This record gives sequence, structure tokens and C-alpha cells, in this order.
Amino acid sequence: MFERLKKEHDEHVKTLPRQEIHITMPDGSQRKGTSWETSPLHIAKEISKSLAERVVIAKVDGQLWDLERPFEGSCSLELLDFEHDEGKKVFWHSSAHVLGEAAERHYGCHLCLGPPTDEGFFYEMGMEDRAVSNADYPALEAISSSAIKEKQVFERLVVSKEDLMKMFGYNKYKVYLIDSKIPDGTSTTVYRCGPMIDLCVGPHIPHTGRIKAMMITKSSASYFLGDSNNDTLQRIYGISFPDKKQLVEYKQFLLEAAKRDHRKIGREQELWFFNELSPGSAFFLPHGTRIYNTLQAFVRGEYPKRGYQEVMSPNMFNSKLWETSGHWANYSEDMFKLDVEKEKFALKPMNCPGHCVIFDSRDRSYKELPIRMAEFGVLHRNEASGALTGLTRVRRFVQDDAHIFCMPSQIEEEIGQIFDFFNYLYGHFGFEAKFALSTRPEKFLGKIETWDEAEQQLKNVLDRFEPGKWELNPGDGAFYGPKIDITIRDALKRSFQCATIQLDFQLPERFKLKYRSPEDHDEPDRPPSRPVMIHRALLGSFERFLAIVTEHFAGKWPFWLSPRQVLVIPVALPYKDYAAEIGEKLSAAGLYADVDNGSDTLGKKIRNGEIAQYNFILVVGQDELDARSVNVRNRDDVGSKTRSEVIIPLDSIVTQLTALKESKKIENKLE
Amino acid sequence: MFERLKKEHDEHVKTLPRQEIHITMPDGSQRKGTSWETSPLHIAKEISKSLAERVVIAKVDGQLWDLERPFEGSCSLELLDFEHDEGKKVFWHSSAHVLGEAAERHYGCHLCLGPPTDEGFFYEMGMEDRAVSNADYPALEAISSSAIKEKQVFERLVVSKEDLMKMFGYNKYKVYLIDSKIPDGTSTTVYRCGPMIDLCVGPHIPHTGRIKAMMITKSSASYFLGDSNNDTLQRIYGISFPDKKQLVEYKQFLLEAAKRDHRKIGREQELWFFNELSPGSAFFLPHGTRIYNTLQAFVRGEYPKRGYQEVMSPNMFNSKLWETSGHWANYSEDMFKLDVEKEKFALKPMNCPGHCVIFDSRDRSYKELPIRMAEFGVLHRNEASGALTGLTRVRRFVQDDAHIFCMPSQIEEEIGQIFDFFNYLYGHFGFEAKFALSTRPEKFLGKIETWDEAEQQLKNVLDRFEPGKWELNPGDGAFYGPKIDITIRDALKRSFQCATIQLDFQLPERFKLKYRSPEDHDEPDRPPSRPVMIHRALLGSFERFLAIVTEHFAGKWPFWLSPRQVLVIPVALPYKDYAAEIGEKLSAAGLYADVDNGSDTLGKKIRNGEIAQYNFILVVGQDELDARSVNVRNRDDVGSKTRSEVIIPLDSIVTQLTALKESKKIENKLE
Repeated sequence: MFERLKKEHDEHVKTLPRQEIHITMPDGSQRKGTSWETSPLHIAKEISKSLAERVVIAKVDGQLWDLERPFEGSCSLELLDFEHDEGKKVFWHSSAHVLGEAAERHYGCHLCLGPPTDEGFFYEMGMEDRAVSNADYPALEAISSSAIKEKQVFERLVVSKEDLMKMFGYNKYKVYLIDSKIPDGTSTTVYRCGPMIDLCVGPHIPHTGRIKAMMITKSSASYFLGDSNNDTLQRIYGISFPDKKQLVEYKQFLLEAAKRDHRKIGREQELWFFNELSPGSAFFLPHGTRIYNTLQAFVRGEYPKRGYQEVMSPNMFNSKLWETSGHWANYSEDMFKLDVEKEKFALKPMNCPGHCVIFDSRDRSYKELPIRMAEFGVLHRNEASGALTGLTRVRRFVQDDAHIFCMPSQIEEEIGQIFDFFNYLYGHFGFEAKFALSTRPEKFLGKIETWDEAEQQLKNVLDRFEPGKWELNPGDGAFYGPKIDITIRDALKRSFQCATIQLDFQLPERFKLKYRSPEDHDEPDRPPSRPVMIHRALLGSFERFLAIVTEHFAGKWPFWLSPRQVLVIPVALPYKDYAAEIGEKLSAAGLYADVDNGSDTLGKKIRNGEIAQYNFILVVGQDELDARSVNVRNRDDVGSKTRSEVIIPLDSIVTQLTALKESKKIENKLE
Repeated sequence: MFERLKKEHDEHVKTLPRQEIHITMPDGSQRKGTSWETSPLHIAKEISKSLAERVVIAKVDGQLWDLERPFEGSCSLELLDFEHDEGKKVFWHSSAHVLGEAAERHYGCHLCLGPPTDEGFFYEMGMEDRAVSNADYPALEAISSSAIKEKQVFERLVVSKEDLMKMFGYNKYKVYLIDSKIPDGTSTTVYRCGPMIDLCVGPHIPHTGRIKAMMITKSSASYFLGDSNNDTLQRIYGISFPDKKQLVEYKQFLLEAAKRDHRKIGREQELWFFNELSPGSAFFLPHGTRIYNTLQAFVRGEYPKRGYQEVMSPNMFNSKLWETSGHWANYSEDMFKLDVEKEKFALKPMNCPGHCVIFDSRDRSYKELPIRMAEFGVLHRNEASGALTGLTRVRRFVQDDAHIFCMPSQIEEEIGQIFDFFNYLYGHFGFEAKFALSTRPEKFLGKIETWDEAEQQLKNVLDRFEPGKWELNPGDGAFYGPKIDITIRDALKRSFQCATIQLDFQLPERFKLKYRSPEDHDEPDRPPSRPVMIHRALLGSFERFLAIVTEHFAGKWPFWLSPRQVLVIPVALPYKDYAAEIGEKLSAAGLYADVDNGSDTLGKKIRNGEIAQYNFILVVGQDELDARSVNVRNRDDVGSKTRSEVIIPLDSIVTQLTALKESKKIENKLE
């Protein structure tokens, strides 16, 4: 059927009138072409051969456009390569088709959905009584490889719903998707490459030959449309590149990432573990708890200085609260619910509604504002057990959460203070940060003036605090207020979003929060003044942040965060007491110090201490005892040729280590 | 029927053979009497008239015995008055009968149960379509009063089950109790006083005239046998005394207790509040959170010094864990349960099972023991909403919980360390403590030798640490191990149990916890060594402890615990900046300091500061500014004639206040 329809389409295009058109490039220059003939790839070739080879997809009048699809009239043109986020997504989307083709041929399965992701792509398929196994990867990669060698062209075709239902009649998943997503009497596109025809809005790369390297990374089970009542599907994940070298680098990256995996380091350093008795809730072992508590104390220590007030609110609430907050209608599936004495309760997935109850617990005056209410409350979200991953996707977590209740005029000042707080905290980890302001969407609540004023304040403060480091996402805000997303990059250049700053005009309205304003006196009938609420978390969830910093530092904790700061080792039995004395002195100074008075050899003890990632190992023998000093080995010098072992007087090392801890420096270096 | 049976009984007693018997007094002296004639009251009268009037109940051969019930043979005798705990219980039990009599006459209700409590007694009754109201109290008290004036004698009678069923046929509650609790073919006792005949094991005071003062204190609804599926009952609480003066004192005590009520102080000082959206879970306001965090930091700060390791375990667990721990079978009603992906989960009511999972997360060697595992985990218990009271009876709480896994030989050392920790903590609050050791009950798990060894160790350590301050409760231990209860008395001489030390031989068995012992090497086939588990909480739940200390200190917080330590007040506008400078200096030193730069008069500001219970108020004017000093007003001097206002240099006051905070002294006094 595809052949016939394609022929009809091509015939039709032939009949369309050719006209001279103007194509405007991003630099403002213009190029000439012919409507229904010239394509973006023609223009790319005109510019340079290397560009034509590199470009992945076009953007015509701001809309993604197949490279070989002819222009339909005068337009603007952008040519995107793989380095561009949108280019990468198209490239991986096309690669998913190749993987789908391979899976269809290998398994005779029914394909379902095959989208790009942030890190490659997957294809998901239904097959009877069979699961994908690692042993299938080579065969799938071989079929993909031959499809790539064939340089299969991606052919685009617009097809009516009626014809689509016939075309995909053999595949119940596609039939369901066509029937439920495409309105009767309309049409959508399909793409063909090689033997595979897929329902797809596109666009795609010109042909599969552009994929120079492709690899299957993993597979897992999933449910059709993510609903556990539906069929179980198999998902195969892959990644691909336009250059073989990039796959080599990617494999390097995977190795490095695997070495740093926080689950692996968590096991090795005995920081945390997971148990099927409570999926998605970590067990923090003593050394993991040390790090957790240090992080929490770090944030908490800033609160009095920055005018935050810590509160504690309950962990479960009657559904009435969630009805007021809107969670019952919009978030109920994600909450853990309980029946208590014939009423419905749910565990809190966030602290905000509880903080509204606290705000509302007595009359408030404008003089009290801003109120900065912080809480380290235990939160629960009902994530599907299949989606849980280490500390990054959990059911139980604690945020460094705060809600600022302020007057609209105070937004700029408050956001500025949050940036200052953010920069202070993140300055201790060495992450790079980028900011994005999302503004009023089409559907929104509240007055336009309130939005405009708030957005202007946010822009002002971004310009003041983060000049050149922020971008605008127009229309991307939540319906209840604009927000600022903060993205950080770790040592492996991976991006994460931890901190969020979300303005909220809606929740104060729902909870009918109010404060006495100075105008109340003159206008007794004016409507109550509602505070603006700023939701903000800086580290985000401690669990997820811990996962990120573990991998960022590859388990080599900066001294202040380290759960194993100092190991004291006597060179032999007679120095046991001196070693113990040093250990006690360090512990009394609040440092995490251990003494290895076991029976291993000195070499073994030092090696053990290095593996356990003690920041400093203090070795003591006769010389050190005589001089009341210690021989200091710095973790970061291990393996270096110019390894420095320094002798430092005992009192001095305590002072220096205490100072290093208090400095919260990343470098493991004594002054 | 009572009359007839009583007559039969009296006739029968007349036929019993009279013999000379010997009655041994507690001091070893002996008195003579006649069996079936002489009663304890005869002996009391022989000794002195005042004793006979004071004595409430007898103990014959260790068994409580009505004063007028004749001895049946030679025996030992103790005469107990109201000051004795058991005497008090009997006195209040008899008073409950009087209250029951009054209620029966006033309401025509069906009486159910009427026991003594720790603070008086109650009677519980079923009545149709009616609830007890405060307005009924005078009438009930008047009827009780006339019953007392009548000096109604308590008459005891043994009645067969068959006769009891007839005697109480009119009252469905009593019928249920007789039918379900008394085996067929046996008999039990009833007591009559005045018109009322009650099913009752006794014993009682000789006659109602002994009650010199009685008062109804409150009333509430309850369920028959505490089960919400049963009938709703009405409960009336009362208290009574053998001396009118004691009631006057008791009313004084109630007034003082009401003034100190932690719910009242919580509201006044804005520390915490409750909301029906989460019954039994307190909302801690900023100042309450300060106290909470200070308490927690106080305990946490001791952990590294005392070899405790802090961990964090999940808040919800699959029912499989609770099946292993035994909670699912024995405690399931008290847990909040959830359905998660077709499995049953429950919120943790205690940390122990999670700690067993942590212990079991890897191999353990005897060299690691003892492991002292501490956690400040959020716990939930499903208390009936009707039973919830302020912070003392809650659904959500955090304990200063720890579990010590040790070898049996280490128990004594560990308990000793716990006592040391207990004494250290409680020394900062000024409570008196008493200890009680509960030993092996009839039904127990484990080997007798293990119990004997453990109990001996507990006795040793009690003798060493708390000589003369502990008593033995033989057979009162839990089936899984002996325990030590610690009772404290507060400023109003009320007793509370906060700390518990419970040995557990059972949970390690259920979780199959084991450690490599030195003997494993020589006897590879020996059964695995199981650690002993010591459950211990010192402050208990922070919520309940906070309630107790709030009332103990009557809201006058010792400086180190105080959420409002210092208020700085400028005498006039020109000293605002100096006041602000002082405030910042104090805050930077980690003190909770506020500055009142508002528009009230100086007198008003000082008064506000006193009401808010600031420990110190620093007033500054020209003299202070010139001398860089402050005028210090001590909270505890307020109202005293010799009120001391002292001038202290600014730097010196910061040092002195910091020292006071660090000393954690109760006295609000600068050195």
C-alpha cells in the first residue's frame, strides 16, 4: 500500500506549481530556490560538502524538517548537526527506527514506540513468551549494521487515518495508537526505511548511512503506555553516533561512569544499600549517615544567617488537605494512600501544603513578611518499583526544602538571596551552573500584571547575579507561576537539575492565605492580600544529591564531607598507645578518625586505608613519638612520583585538619 | 438473692471449727487470734485506734485481704494505709463503687467496669441516647456524698457462675463478662455496699465512711472492652481521699498542672499546634523546632563519644519484614498499613526490625561487637483518634532510639554505659529517677541459663550505678527478655516513664542474626552465635519528653534549651543601631537573640519580653552605648524585691551567655 500511496503523492507533487523562493539563513543572508524542488540538503551542498555531510536535520520557519523534503515556499532555514540538542534527538530517533527494523526482523515482534531519550534511544515491542536477553545484542547489532550499510533512505508519506488502520492492521499496539490518538478524517505521516514502515511524525536523517556507530546498551521490561494493567513489553536501549570515534569515547565514558556509580561506591565504602523489603528507600549505613548529616548540617547552619525558620510538619494528612492543595485531583496516583478510621489519608510527597497550614495557623501582618519556612521532612512518592534506581529515583527522600511567603514586591530581593545561597552552597562542590527562566504559558492562573511584574523581577535578578549564564524559555512556566531551572554539570560533564525556584500564585489562593497589609486600614473592603509563595530547594533531595556528588567526586570525598577523614597507623606494637592518643585527640576535635591497631602489616594497613579513601593517613613510629609528631600521607598524592610525606607536630596537625574541615575546601590539602 | 446467699454463707462460717492462730507482723512479732473470727481490723485496733482508722487494707500471706474478713488460719499480716500504692488503689477502687452506685441511681444506667487508675478511678457505663455532661457532676457528687455519710459497709460474698448469671441478668455487659471470663462450674466474688451489688474480685475498705473527700474530675466516651465495634460507653473519672485537706491540695495541684499544660504553653509561646488534618501529628513552629533540634543535637552530640553509630532506615516496609519480626501477628492493629503494587506494606512503629536488616546486611565478627546502632527515625503508630492527647499520646513521633547488638558477656558493660548516658542526660533536667528490674516471667523464650546470666549482670550494674534506687519486679519481664524500667518524677512530683532498657533474646533469633565467634574456628559445626539485642531509648519519644519538660519547667526554659534566649531593647530610637549591633553579635555567637525595635513603650517592650519568657533582657541607652555595655535583666529575678539589674560590658555578656549555653545548666544565672 505504501508504494501505491507514495506514487500517488509523487505524482501529485509533480503537478504543484514551481516558483522562485527565497531562503533566509540564520546570518540574514538569502539564497534562491524553487518551491517543491529545492530541499535543505541542496542548500547545505551549495554551502559546502562537509556541511552537507555533517548536517542532520533542518529547521524551516522554526519547524523541524527532513533534509530532503522540498521547501513549499519562501522561508527561513537553519541547518542542525549532531552537536545540536535537536539534531541529536533526530539522529537518535532515526537510529531507533533502524533498531526497530532489526528487532522486527530478528524477533518477528510487534513494534510499539521508539523515541529518542537524553542518552540515546529505545524501541519497545510486544512479543509472545519471550524476553530480550544480552545474548541477542550481537545479532540485533549485526542486522542494524547491514541496514546502515544499505544506506536506507527515510521516505516520508502523509496517510489518512483510514489507510493507516489498514496499513498497521497486523499490529494491535499501532492500531490502538492510531485509533486513540488520531482524530477521524485526519491524516498523519509514516516513514519507511528499508523494509520497515513506521507510524511516525518524523523528521529523520536522509538515510541510515549517516549512522557510523551504533550500540545496544541495555534492555528491560515495560508496560504498554506505562500502565501495569496493559501488556508487558520489551524495551531495547541503544546509542549511536555520526562518527566512530564518538562511540569509542562514549564507551570510555561508560567505563568511567561505571567506576563512579554511586551504588557501587555505596557498597564499597559501606555508605548505603537497598533491600527488597523497602524498594526505593535507602538504608544509610553509619558512614553514609555521616555524609548525609554533614550535608544537612551544612544547609541548616546557613538558615539562621539567612533568616530561615525551620519547622516540622506531619508526614500524613487527611485527603481534605490534598483536595485543597489540588494534589488529590492531579497527583493522587503518585501518593501513598492509607485508610485511617474510615477517612482517606496520604503520605506527604512535598512539604508545601503543610507549610500553608502553618502560615494560616494565625493572623499574619505584612510586617512579618517574608516568612522563610524550611523543613527537612521525610517525603514519599509512589514511584513504580520498576522505575526505581539507586539514590536517583527513590520513593523516600528528604529535600532541603523551603517556602518563602512574601509580598509581590519582595520577589526580586528574595530570589536574589536564593541565588546568593545557591552560589554559596554549590561553590563547595565545584559544579558549573546554568539558569533558565520559564515564563507565562498560554494557560495560566492569576493576573497578567502580576506575572509581568514577577517575570521582570526574575529577569532583573538573573541579570544581576548570573549575567550571561541564563536563557529564556518563553511560555514554559507552570500554570501557577514562572520558574527558574538551574542545571549543573558534573566532573563527567553530565547535566543534572537539582535546584528549583518556582513562584506560585495559586497555592496561596487555594489555601486562602492572607496578611494584613498597610492598605487594609484605609480600605476596609479591599480583598485580602495574598502572599506569593516561592517554592525552592537548593540541593534538591539529599538522596539524589548524594548520588550526584558521589559520582562527581568518584568517592574521593572532600575532607569536610568525608566519612573517613583520618587513619592513624602505628608502625609497630610499641606505638599503639601513641596512635590511640592521636585518634582520641582527633575524635575529640570532632574529626572522623580511626586507629588501625590490628595485626596486619604496615604496608597492608596503609593499602587498606588508601582503598577506604581516608583523606589522610598518619603513620607513627619511634621518631614521631620522640618528636610528638605524625608522618602525614595525603590521599591525593598516592601514586604520584613526587609523593610528599611530611612530618607535622601533633598539635599542629589537629589545628590544620580542623581548619581544613571548617574551610569546606574541595582540595585535600593542608595549609 | 444476695441476702439469701449471704445468710447461707454466714451460717456456714458459724459451723467452721475455731482454733487459736498466730499472726506474724512485718517486724517479726506475733499476735494471737481465732480462726474464722479475728480479722485484720481487730489486730489494728489492738495496736492503736489511730492505726485502725488509718489502715485501708490488709495483706495476708502476701495477698490483699478485706480488713473485716476473718483470718482462716495462722498467717503473716501487713496493714496498708492510703500512702501505700496498693492501699491507694484499693481506696480508689472502693470509691469507684460509690461513684457507680451514684451513677446507677442517677441515670439508671448499666454499669460495666470501674477500676482504680494511677490518678483516681473511673466507672464506665452504658446508657441509651445519653452522654454524661459536666452539669451532672454536682448531682452525682451529692448522691456519692450521702452514700459516704451512710457509712455503707462493703460486704463480700462468693457466688457460683450460675447464680451470678441470674444475679446480673439485667445487665448485658456484666453477663458478657461473667460468661466469657468465668469458667463454668466455678465461682467468684461480688461486693455489696448500700443498694449496689457489683461483680468484683475486691478487696475493699471496710465502709464508705472512710472516704472523706471525693470529686468527679472528667468524663469521656469509650467503647466496651476498648473495641470500636462494640457499644459506646460513658466513662466518669473521679478522685478521692481519706482526708479533706488532701483534696484541697489536689485541687491546688490541678491548677498548677493546668497552668503548666504543654498544650497551653505550646500555644502561648508559639511552639507547636495540632490540626484535625493530621490528628496525633504535631506541627512544630519555629520556636518549638528550636527546642526539638536542641534536644536532638544534645543526644546526637554524645553518640560519637559513646561509640554509637547513627544510621537511617526506611519508613515503610513490606509485610514480610513484619512477619519476620512478629509485628504482623502481634502489632498489626497498631500499624498504618498501605497497599503498594499488590503487596502489603506498613509504616514503621519502631526502628528495631530495620536495624536487624542492617546488622544482617553483611557478615559480622565478634570483634565488631558491641554495635551500637542509633536512629532518629520518624515512627508512626495507629492510635485511636479518641486516645490522642497533645504531645503525650501521638501517632507520629521520633525516639532517641538505639539498638545494641552484643555478646551475652557484654551485657553488664553495655547496661553500665547506658546508665552513665542516662544520668548524664537527665542530670540536665533535674528529674529524680527510680529503677525497676523485671525478670523472667513464667512463659519465656530462650535458655534459663541465658536469662539467669543476663539478670545477674543487670542486678550487678544496678547495684553499682543505682544502689538503693532500684527495686525488683520478679516475673514481670517480657517473654523475650528482662528489662529495666526507669521512672522519673517531675517538679509536680508526677511520675513518668520515658527511658526503657529492654533485653531481647528473641528478635536476633527471628532474624537469624549471627556473628563469627572465636570458637567457630575450633568447632566448625557449632550453631551460629546470636547477638543479644538491647533496645534502649533514653529520652524516649522527643514529642512526649518535650511535653514533660515543658510542664516540668512550666515553660521557663533553661538557657541552653530556650528558643528565646535574649531580647535586646533600646530605651529610645537613637539606640536602635547599637541594639541591632548587639543582636547581630549574639546571633553570630549562635544564640537566639531578638531585637525589639518596634514602636511600643520601653515598659511595654520589657513586659512583652517577660511574658515571652526571654531568659535575659538587655536594655541599652546612652550610658550603655557610651560604655559599650548592656543592662541585663534576668528572667528569674522578675517580681523579686531584690531585682538585680547589672551592667555588663558587651564582649563580656557574649562570653558569659555562650558559657551559660554550653554549660547546659538549669539555673538561669550568669557566672
